[in-house]
Amino acid sequence: MNSVVRLYDTTLRDGAQSEDVSFSLEDKIRIARVLDELGIHYIEGGYPGSNPRDAGFFDAFRKDPLKRARLTAFGMTRRAGIAADKDENLRALLSASTPVITVVGKSWDFHVTEALRISLDENIDLIGSSIRYLAERVDEVVYDAEHYFDAWKRNPEYTARTLRAAVDGGAKVLALCDTNGGTMPWEIAEGVAEVVKAFPGVEVGIHCHNDAELAVANSLAAVRAGAVHVQGTINGIGERCGNANLVSIAADLALKMEQPVLTADEMRKLTSVSKLVYELANLQPSKRQPYVGQSAFAHKGGMHVSAVQRATFTYEHVAPEVVGNQRRVLVSDLAGRSNVLFKAKEFGLELEAGSPQAAAILDRVKDLESQGYQYEGADGSFELLMKRALGQHKTFFKLIGFRVIDEKRAGDQAPISEASVQIEVDGQVAHTVALGDGPVNALDTALRKALLRFYPELAGVELLDYKVRVVNSGKGTDAKVRVLVESGDGEDKWGTVGVSENIIEASWQALVDSIDYRLYKSERRGER
Amino acid sequence: MNSVVRLYDTTLRDGAQSEDVSFSLEDKIRIARVLDELGIHYIEGGYPGSNPRDAGFFDAFRKDPLKRARLTAFGMTRRAGIAADKDENLRALLSASTPVITVVGKSWDFHVTEALRISLDENIDLIGSSIRYLAERVDEVVYDAEHYFDAWKRNPEYTARTLRAAVDGGAKVLALCDTNGGTMPWEIAEGVAEVVKAFPGVEVGIHCHNDAELAVANSLAAVRAGAVHVQGTINGIGERCGNANLVSIAADLALKMEQPVLTADEMRKLTSVSKLVYELANLQPSKRQPYVGQSAFAHKGGMHVSAVQRATFTYEHVAPEVVGNQRRVLVSDLAGRSNVLFKAKEFGLELEAGSPQAAAILDRVKDLESQGYQYEGADGSFELLMKRALGQHKTFFKLIGFRVIDEKRAGDQAPISEASVQIEVDGQVAHTVALGDGPVNALDTALRKALLRFYPELAGVELLDYKVRVVNSGKGTDAKVRVLVESGDGEDKWGTVGVSENIIEASWQALVDSIDYRLYKSERRGER
Repeated sequence: MNSVVRLYDTTLRDGAQSEDVSFSLEDKIRIARVLDELGIHYIEGGYPGSNPRDAGFFDAFRKDPLKRARLTAFGMTRRAGIAADKDENLRALLSASTPVITVVGKSWDFHVTEALRISLDENIDLIGSSIRYLAERVDEVVYDAEHYFDAWKRNPEYTARTLRAAVDGGAKVLALCDTNGGTMPWEIAEGVAEVVKAFPGVEVGIHCHNDAELAVANSLAAVRAGAVHVQGTINGIGERCGNANLVSIAADLALKMEQPVLTADEMRKLTSVSKLVYELANLQPSKRQPYVGQSAFAHKGGMHVSAVQRATFTYEHVAPEVVGNQRRVLVSDLAGRSNVLFKAKEFGLELEAGSPQAAAILDRVKDLESQGYQYEGADGSFELLMKRALGQHKTFFKLIGFRVIDEKRAGDQAPISEASVQIEVDGQVAHTVALGDGPVNALDTALRKALLRFYPELAGVELLDYKVRVVNSGKGTDAKVRVLVESGDGEDKWGTVGVSENIIEASWQALVDSIDYRLYKSERRGER
Repeated sequence: MNSVVRLYDTTLRDGAQSEDVSFSLEDKIRIARVLDELGIHYIEGGYPGSNPRDAGFFDAFRKDPLKRARLTAFGMTRRAGIAADKDENLRALLSASTPVITVVGKSWDFHVTEALRISLDENIDLIGSSIRYLAERVDEVVYDAEHYFDAWKRNPEYTARTLRAAVDGGAKVLALCDTNGGTMPWEIAEGVAEVVKAFPGVEVGIHCHNDAELAVANSLAAVRAGAVHVQGTINGIGERCGNANLVSIAADLALKMEQPVLTADEMRKLTSVSKLVYELANLQPSKRQPYVGQSAFAHKGGMHVSAVQRATFTYEHVAPEVVGNQRRVLVSDLAGRSNVLFKAKEFGLELEAGSPQAAAILDRVKDLESQGYQYEGADGSFELLMKRALGQHKTFFKLIGFRVIDEKRAGDQAPISEASVQIEVDGQVAHTVALGDGPVNALDTALRKALLRFYPELAGVELLDYKVRVVNSGKGTDAKVRVLVESGDGEDKWGTVGVSENIIEASWQALVDSIDYRLYKSERRGER
């Protein structure tokens, strides 16, 4: 079956309005290519008139066009008092040479008289003449009716006139915008249905914002009411609370509403596209994000996990692979035997249920968890734990001793932290010292310095993240802390954990596990 | 107008299932008190039978009950083959002495036969007998129908029997759960309407998960279909993609659906409650979160901003103050002034709006917040900050210097941490040394030892809580950390904060603020 609904991505224009987000020209081009591969139908690139970066963007696609998606340039209706063919912004829109142009106009009488400061009739003319001028020169014009729903609730007659002007001017799509993001799904449905009825033959679109946490629901409500064009952004990035999240919308339409806006192959790209956009936007991905988040298919708990394995569909609303994500079994304090066996399998350790090895690992996990260890974010430490419980652990180096000194004198901004480390590898001793931004950073630096001459592959290992959490809070500065370290070598990432009442000790454990984990990896590959 | 809808918070139970979240006993108690103040109707505290922490939680409220909210204990139906009055979990539920008990049972025939491995009839009996046993012994039993919507779509007759058993057993509320989170709003509406019709006189509730990014919309759809009891968590934390976000639901119900579930005064607390839960859960708040996020009412420059200032309602779906948030104008930030004045008043500092003092404090807060300081849990530091900005700060002691040494030799369990501190008070020098369970504990102990002879009242001060959070995560061990310390003297509690790339320095700042705060208190009372 084919879907009648078309996805319109505005990550590069409305999404880039998000606080903290600014895409480079290269980022924008890369995202557009990836969205094209993904199967998005329209990709809005930006305002051609507004800045050199956006002009460069459109240039790039004139030379090397998108494969399937329709590239779209965005701009406002012409300025009052200037003829359409003399208006600089309209001319810049045409100079982008895109098959589609989207023009935004005012729906709300208040904004016409107070923001544009023109008469209501003149606004009607701005919309009509701008669209007519463009529609005669490009394949397709989309009209974005700004503040549509708020305006329609207050002055339905005037909003109808604005849409009529757009249609008479030649707009192929009327995209109704919930610009302030506060409209309820049932209001969206009513507003869309009315426009669908009033303008037969015209495609009705929807553009939602998430200010009431309803942007996805509102987009779906619009489709049910007859909208066939859905605007949104990847991961819902955008101004204030963001735009409608096109990732969730695509998945909901395809998997729940029999509107296969993407093919099954394309759907499997959703998770990686989501990650790429976070990466390029320099935003931390949301673990809890529907469909594509790291936790979206994470399961806790014993009985639950064994049941998931027997019949995934009864514990997951969709299969993770369908959207390119994967199931994760979290080793948590509710851990049961089935969790541990599942994990062991993931790491390539074949364990029989009920075997003494499985029991040994389980006992060890329970013991460590009761001490405050947590393996949810520490797969690396968990793998080492299993090796240790199975007697397969190897010692890559021995600690002789370390000392960390933090010293602050009156007038210093912060203490100076210095660490010295003495270790032994195969009978050879290394003794190093380093400064750091704090005791743990100093210790980490000194330890790597000591190990590097024995294990040069550690040069490529980076600490990506360091988290500290007080385990038994409420006991003041002698509370137990858990340290979680994430490391990477450009290829893989792994998490390790340490727990102690002494933060230096907890950090030390996590650092040592991180190094051990990487050295096991070298061994497995026969690098040594 | 009164709302017929009741809010049921499960942050402490289902929310705590969230990956990376684990609340301490003190965290749980603090959150429950704050939710009580907020006006939440039901607060689900946890599983009394499951672990000592949850048992301790219910003990605390037996001694010092909540003011308005109904405290709720959560558990499963009795185990098969064990009489209700012999079932350990049911007895543990009663022993929590809460006015409300929520019991979860299986709706889906598949789960009955495959997970519980009992007959369908036996499950009906488990539900009925468990609820009857409890309903005879507490005020109110809520029945959580697990996987309700998935089960209902497949086997409506059996799900109807499960609900009938719960009602006949004496359940006051039938809470229908979209456990896997994949149900569409129109399906929720239909399912709820059917139950409302079938069980007149029984309250129908809704419990949604966000796997299709529809949890808030689904909750609202349920209310429109007749549900009067809405379950969710603060900020939507929870397993996988999280639960329905009670913050957005409360705001949508009150501001958009004429269901004032919270009073206007209570609504203004939403932003601070949201922040507190993030802080205690040790999660990064989402800037884009609807209503309460830092970006939720952020406007970018230009014509837009001046129009916003002239007529906010046309650019904002609700006024930010209504939910305790504030407008931010990203170019020329006017925000925060009223907040600071409000805070100052709380601390007994009379500040005039627009005065140079108010401006000085505002500048200082902005500067410190951009460095990573946060005053949500640190009223003590905030008060000191205001005093400093007003030039009213007094120096109670001068640091000459400190040194902390952590030393570990082969075979040691953990490093030995020793701190020496040298300070001066009124020309007299004290020089002390102490050991500790880690560098911060050692430093804290040595500092108190040094100050005690000058300020004997510090003997009664205890550090109650110590939290560390990485501010700019993703930079390894040289990331900036924020340390939050909670102190108490048996009468009052106060929070203080420190930020630095060096954890020792961040901790030092928070410790010094804690001591200064207590010494100001002595002064105010004329104890010295």
